[in-house]
Amino acid sequence: MDIQVERNVMAANNRAAEKLQKSLAGRGVFVINIMSSPGAGKTTLLEATARALKDELRLAVIEGDIQTSQDADRIAAQGVQAVQINTQGGCHLDAAMVGQALDLLDLDDLDLLIIENVGNLVCPAEFDLGEEAKVVLLSTPEGEDKPSKYPLMFRLSKALVINKVDLLPYLPFSMERVRKDVLDIQPELEIIELSAMTGQGLDGWLNWLRQGVARARKAAGEPDQG
Amino acid sequence: MDIQVERNVMAANNRAAEKLQKSLAGRGVFVINIMSSPGAGKTTLLEATARALKDELRLAVIEGDIQTSQDADRIAAQGVQAVQINTQGGCHLDAAMVGQALDLLDLDDLDLLIIENVGNLVCPAEFDLGEEAKVVLLSTPEGEDKPSKYPLMFRLSKALVINKVDLLPYLPFSMERVRKDVLDIQPELEIIELSAMTGQGLDGWLNWLRQGVARARKAAGEPDQG
Repeated sequence: MDIQVERNVMAANNRAAEKLQKSLAGRGVFVINIMSSPGAGKTTLLEATARALKDELRLAVIEGDIQTSQDADRIAAQGVQAVQINTQGGCHLDAAMVGQALDLLDLDDLDLLIIENVGNLVCPAEFDLGEEAKVVLLSTPEGEDKPSKYPLMFRLSKALVINKVDLLPYLPFSMERVRKDVLDIQPELEIIELSAMTGQGLDGWLNWLRQGVARARKAAGEPDQG
Repeated sequence: MDIQVERNVMAANNRAAEKLQKSLAGRGVFVINIMSSPGAGKTTLLEATARALKDELRLAVIEGDIQTSQDADRIAAQGVQAVQINTQGGCHLDAAMVGQALDLLDLDDLDLLIIENVGNLVCPAEFDLGEEAKVVLLSTPEGEDKPSKYPLMFRLSKALVINKVDLLPYLPFSMERVRKDVLDIQPELEIIELSAMTGQGLDGWLNWLRQGVARARKAAGEPDQG
């Protein structure tokens, strides 16, 4: 009975996500869904991303949190549109919530839409949000064993950002082991090492975003502005 | 409809947890449920705890993970009984899973039972496991904002372990702000600062466990061995 119910919830979300994806397709917007543990540095990465790209791309961020608007406030302070979703206890975003947030944005005036999911390595992976690409962020203090313990999120993602590389001198963390483990799970995964706090390696991430925006524009038949 | 189902799942868990608590009460075992984000250091803390206490107390650990037995293997390597529960995708332990794991342990031969929940700051807080005390662990690299963003887990816990204090010199983390925020949420919270990796501050944690064991013995009418 529980399993039946869970299937119904998933099926309803899949339908809503497909509808979102159709309404987003052809508009030339690159939409990504960023997921990680709490405190891995998603919002700090998005602050740095907003600072770096806001004069180059039309960018908006949807922030998912259980409660508070702290994260949307941080993004808005960078001069970028931010919509906060509060899940009121829910451990992940779903496509219906994102659909409501999209009503507050002008999609024809956007190049890049970043959805920051609730901090959680488990549940968010199971709920598509109509995105073009899932991105998983892993921070070095979390340890090397996360890909093997939480494989689903790594399997479904197109890019892995390894954040807080500035802490590597103080931690037992083998980049080599993590690279091997994640590529065993998902051989196509793009791996980007950076420190959102210091800015080290940020260009690799910005270029990955620029490439996604260029692909979305091409798919929509727009001229490449890059 | 979804809400109704969720209530049924919670009610069923509450009944199972009460049954567990009754079967554990009076046996003189101190049972705790440790919760945190993935990678905050629960297993590293339990390895250090096992090394420090295994000749002093009769100790067992129940390890909750989505998949793999890596954590139970790490605890067993310290010479302490460890039972692994794999939730097969589930984002938290529930009382029924813990009940099955208890069947593998001799409760009359135990002083301290530590249940390590799945790494997740959201869902585990909602599911009682028959424990005497919930413990939340926060690691300094996760940032100061976690109590205000994930208040339920902090509100329900009796102790907060702040781990990875050895990284404080390299992080923007105000211990003062965290102490204020968590005490606003839960004024009775015992706060213990430590580094499970270096051993700094570990004694405060060990003494908190010893006090819990002494209380459980007293409640069971056993002589205090401490």
